[in-house]
Amino acid sequence: MIRTENYPSKALADAVEAISSLPGVGSRSALRLALHLLHQPADRIHRFASAIDNLAEGVHYCRTCMMVADGDQCGICSDAHRDHSTICVVESVRDVMSIEATGQYNGVYHVLGGIISPIAGIGPSDLTIKELVARAGSAKELILALPGDVEGETTAFYIYRQVERCGCSVTALARGLGFGDDLEYADSLTLGRSIAGRQPFKP
Amino acid sequence: MIRTENYPSKALADAVEAISSLPGVGSRSALRLALHLLHQPADRIHRFASAIDNLAEGVHYCRTCMMVADGDQCGICSDAHRDHSTICVVESVRDVMSIEATGQYNGVYHVLGGIISPIAGIGPSDLTIKELVARAGSAKELILALPGDVEGETTAFYIYRQVERCGCSVTALARGLGFGDDLEYADSLTLGRSIAGRQPFKP
Repeated sequence: MIRTENYPSKALADAVEAISSLPGVGSRSALRLALHLLHQPADRIHRFASAIDNLAEGVHYCRTCMMVADGDQCGICSDAHRDHSTICVVESVRDVMSIEATGQYNGVYHVLGGIISPIAGIGPSDLTIKELVARAGSAKELILALPGDVEGETTAFYIYRQVERCGCSVTALARGLGFGDDLEYADSLTLGRSIAGRQPFKP
Repeated sequence: MIRTENYPSKALADAVEAISSLPGVGSRSALRLALHLLHQPADRIHRFASAIDNLAEGVHYCRTCMMVADGDQCGICSDAHRDHSTICVVESVRDVMSIEATGQYNGVYHVLGGIISPIAGIGPSDLTIKELVARAGSAKELILALPGDVEGETTAFYIYRQVERCGCSVTALARGLGFGDDLEYADSLTLGRSIAGRQPFKP
């Protein structure tokens, strides 16, 4: 382990320290990345730095769905061709992008900004659940597209209790074997639920 | 795959594009890192960006050994307690830091800035070999601490031919089994060379 106070240059040490603050990047990788940047032409380094810098003020959040956006409304919420009565509830911005990439969904979203997790100290008031309840009144359907773990199910249940009097239907993502999955290698919980939740065969 | 033109925010897309230009960072990891940064307070984002920005002008190279430095001479070359007649020749800045971390070396360094590699289009004139030859005249020993692959050996041989008339002795790093290595798991080339280069046993 090379400690940053032993680095040959203060600027290099600062860059390594900044990069190693990223999740999943150790100090050895950070040094490799910092030296890679260091060997780039100065204008490329400046462009890189200003792209990061712009994250602070250049990214806004949609006032309706809390998705990242260029202004105060995102492209999805301002799109009149989308079904605004169907709201897909997701944990994060990344989930919206994953669902959008499927091309299978034409409704709108609601980004919770996290998931209820007592261990991580995240409660319902840290998420955008209040804003979701306010939207639910005018929606026909709420799709809970949350993770399939304990925290995800807790969050789904909490939201369900909050919106059940709103009159909209509440659905959840289908769970089961993935397409192309082998039964042999499926975990038994998934396989068990896949049998319990079997669907009529459509030839 | 989510294409950056489909990103919900231009600033986010720019940041992901910049981060994914780093070696070994794919667009999915880049998105994860960009969103992590995005969720930091603005002053932390600015600090991160300026640490990177400073790499462009804040890092200098030692005029003697080509190591990164805060000024035009590095801390090692300006240290009178070090043995300036022993020069350890390495490929990169990282190698200097690795050797320094051992605490076993009290000489100075020479950073080649790469290794001769016809495939990558790197020839002797792209490296700081001319500067090394100029220093070799006043040195007692040159330690070639270069990679143990074909490129490293080619470079070592090239340097040897350039400096053999300088009158300094030329040595190379000891090669063999690592400390704690099992014979069973050693590759046969290393094991073979380790037998051929066996040393007197010192109890």
